[in-house]
Amino acid sequence: MCELLGMSANVPTDICFSFSGLLERGGNTGPHKDGWGITFYEGKGCRTFKDPEPSYQSEIAKLVKAYPIKSVSVISHIRQGNRGRVCLENTHPFTRELWGREITYAHNGQLSNYHDLKPQYYRPVGNTDSELAFCWLLDKIREKYPKRPSNMASVFRYAAKLSHTLREKGVFNMLLTDGVFVLAYCTNNLHYITRRAPFGKATLIDADMVVDFNEETTPNDVVTVIATRPLTNDERWQKMQPGEFALFKMGELI
Amino acid sequence: MCELLGMSANVPTDICFSFSGLLERGGNTGPHKDGWGITFYEGKGCRTFKDPEPSYQSEIAKLVKAYPIKSVSVISHIRQGNRGRVCLENTHPFTRELWGREITYAHNGQLSNYHDLKPQYYRPVGNTDSELAFCWLLDKIREKYPKRPSNMASVFRYAAKLSHTLREKGVFNMLLTDGVFVLAYCTNNLHYITRRAPFGKATLIDADMVVDFNEETTPNDVVTVIATRPLTNDERWQKMQPGEFALFKMGELI
Repeated sequence: MCELLGMSANVPTDICFSFSGLLERGGNTGPHKDGWGITFYEGKGCRTFKDPEPSYQSEIAKLVKAYPIKSVSVISHIRQGNRGRVCLENTHPFTRELWGREITYAHNGQLSNYHDLKPQYYRPVGNTDSELAFCWLLDKIREKYPKRPSNMASVFRYAAKLSHTLREKGVFNMLLTDGVFVLAYCTNNLHYITRRAPFGKATLIDADMVVDFNEETTPNDVVTVIATRPLTNDERWQKMQPGEFALFKMGELI
Repeated sequence: MCELLGMSANVPTDICFSFSGLLERGGNTGPHKDGWGITFYEGKGCRTFKDPEPSYQSEIAKLVKAYPIKSVSVISHIRQGNRGRVCLENTHPFTRELWGREITYAHNGQLSNYHDLKPQYYRPVGNTDSELAFCWLLDKIREKYPKRPSNMASVFRYAAKLSHTLREKGVFNMLLTDGVFVLAYCTNNLHYITRRAPFGKATLIDADMVVDFNEETTPNDVVTVIATRPLTNDERWQKMQPGEFALFKMGELI
């Protein structure tokens, strides 16, 4: 299995605090040592840092932890491989272009009988069930929406509907973003928290680290963090239900 | 204008030495301060580091310079923007998936009357002439080769042929790779050097740095470096001619 981390915010926000917690699970406090990746959106563009090395000892992860890249939409993943060997092409997140937009995805779980998923338009580069499911999702979306619709929320709701089909094939916890919307889909393990004024302190579970969001934010900031398991032990995380999806834009659940 | 850097090698090789020279041109010894990027292939996977910040003061560039990522195919670019503003989505290299392979591209030059390039399959995310030309190239390749041909060299020769059409629209110096082949196409400014035994010393033009390749290599290594302008002052770089292309595989011109 793997761990997911996502963020949606109404102002460009760094994810160093949450990422620091996640990293420890990549071979130190958790067994997810088969690579990690993180995608930041800045405007329509995005950039991904990824490494097949365990995150807790990765030089690149150290940079990402120390260098605050500010973004309104982030997706991250640390991997404990099951389907597909440990290598760069099997490392999440995955990104493809659709209608001139970068779409990014990461998956936690394991699918069975997925060989009937035969995407034509988008093709997997690696050999994970995860990337195959992503290509299938995008194929279906492109089929239904040959042009980019003005109502992008409907695209993400359609992606959630398609995710029900994937959930029938096994465990499908998933994050999907176009840089504006962030979709979280739950099969069995996904939590989120929306932070807004009045802000308080938070303590990481996996590292000896406390942050006072009061000092880091302005009163209008709204930031949602999504994670497989709660990252802090003194905040109230919302546990998602099997088959539930949550769609965020600018930090707010919509 | 911009500067290009490419590498093709028969063993995974780091590009720290050449990249150190290129970086200085990103706002220090050269005016190319509008962002930079570099893509490394490792197997079928690739990873890109990019930054809209000037390369000579970029934190991420410092990491890439210090952390030897070994690869057989690399493409890098530093930008002095003309078409399209300075932002992440306009920062080269650009990558798209075709037949389940990652194809990466970077362009130096400027095109005019390019609005008749109307790719359908692949669409630009940013608004540069460069990315539009890349999408057009991929559209044409996908049209001619709906399936991945066994002879990939023919695909790159076709890309060179298409590049003649783009050269009619202005200056089109370009690097293109699938991680196995590296194509260099020249309009007016592109050089390459193939290093093989007996190896010697080389001195960077843009930084106070000498390397003795004898100490870094084994006798069977073959490494070609492609650059807009020669990066070293004590080696013989091959100047490419207008309309000339060079296709490399495992360091060798083929």
